[in-house]
Amino acid sequence: MNIILFDRDEINGSTVLLSGHRAEHIINVLKSNPGDPLRTGIINGPTGISTVQQTSGTTVELLLGAHTTAPTPPPVDIVLALPRPIMLKRVLAQVATFGIGRLFLINSNRVEKSFFSASLLGEDKIRQRLLAGLEQAGDTLLPQVSIHKRFRPFAEDVLPKMATDYQEMILAHPGCQFNLGELLPPPLKGRILLIIGPEGGWIDFEVSLLHGHGVRPFHLGPRILRVDSVIPSLLGQLDLLRRL
Amino acid sequence: MNIILFDRDEINGSTVLLSGHRAEHIINVLKSNPGDPLRTGIINGPTGISTVQQTSGTTVELLLGAHTTAPTPPPVDIVLALPRPIMLKRVLAQVATFGIGRLFLINSNRVEKSFFSASLLGEDKIRQRLLAGLEQAGDTLLPQVSIHKRFRPFAEDVLPKMATDYQEMILAHPGCQFNLGELLPPPLKGRILLIIGPEGGWIDFEVSLLHGHGVRPFHLGPRILRVDSVIPSLLGQLDLLRRL
Repeated sequence: MNIILFDRDEINGSTVLLSGHRAEHIINVLKSNPGDPLRTGIINGPTGISTVQQTSGTTVELLLGAHTTAPTPPPVDIVLALPRPIMLKRVLAQVATFGIGRLFLINSNRVEKSFFSASLLGEDKIRQRLLAGLEQAGDTLLPQVSIHKRFRPFAEDVLPKMATDYQEMILAHPGCQFNLGELLPPPLKGRILLIIGPEGGWIDFEVSLLHGHGVRPFHLGPRILRVDSVIPSLLGQLDLLRRL
Repeated sequence: MNIILFDRDEINGSTVLLSGHRAEHIINVLKSNPGDPLRTGIINGPTGISTVQQTSGTTVELLLGAHTTAPTPPPVDIVLALPRPIMLKRVLAQVATFGIGRLFLINSNRVEKSFFSASLLGEDKIRQRLLAGLEQAGDTLLPQVSIHKRFRPFAEDVLPKMATDYQEMILAHPGCQFNLGELLPPPLKGRILLIIGPEGGWIDFEVSLLHGHGVRPFHLGPRILRVDSVIPSLLGQLDLLRRL
């Protein structure tokens, strides 16, 4: 945990009383004492430095310093064919760690229907995993997650309405002509929508429907990566293309 | 499992008899029947297509086709401060999935001594995790893993002897001047040695010792990533820099 996060409505005057995993981390991992400074952040708000005021066995009271460093909205959103729960759990923390604006979890022919009944898709569970990712990254901006149980309405209605938000909408798909660097020669500017398929890949119908709505495909090379390897690899590459 | 791997000495004439997790995968996941083709590979050797000859409840006999596609040795090696076992487990599969030549697991001031007694560091366990990564990637080349329990002899004796193998030796370290793209402007050529620190980072002495032996530092940006996010992100970036 590289930042202690709390909601604005947890603030009481100039203090915050923490319990649960945040207090445990401060007491048992950081072993902080009264007077010690801690990096803190208001969820979806600015970061700052606070001071440990007092600790009990299970709670920590923080005295808030100025929180003035506003977070930077990440320039990437992801559309992801809903992965199996164990993978989704990792991916939620991962996307928050790397920083994305929105995560659209969508259906696709090769997504198992049962994945949509995963308890992990509850709003609280999603939030908890995203917060774990932000606590790792040191950021405060929660990605907005939405769930789309039907592929076609997503591709035909939702996607076209938001197409103008993006500089490019791109799709990872094996066997197509260009790699990412060829599709988006540096320096990369503007907002990107990155679309990532299910284990086993998209079916042709899906690729051609997305292509028809302005999505451009690129290949990942000859190796077959799991989604929890694809996401950090591609987010790393997009970040690099902005800096070249 | 995107390829079925076996050792050369498992081949008996033109067949291989599989049991254990490979047979289970073919029977229960792929649900292959006699006559079905399968992508196969000889560990550290070429890949090809084989045919399911017969299956029992727990074994599968394959008839080998020509194995002629030689694997490409990856142009990256990694030096990694030994992570905690649960992270190491992921990292071993991950580096094999992405493809690296060698993995040097080294000590550093902020590595807990107990990590070196992890049962995962047994040769068989390491090999098992690497094979899992190769089975995902569809590759056959096992990364060579070595363990170095003392930092200084590694940095002062091992590293200088292999320095000429690399175009660049680079070190991920926060707060330094350049990012990866600035350090290695594209197109990237030649072999890279990528050095990644422990949770909590290197100490100054370590950075300056490595620097003194020709290692150049770069920063990863403001977000704090775990090692299982850093590795795919950087391997993705290095791969991209070769293709620009």
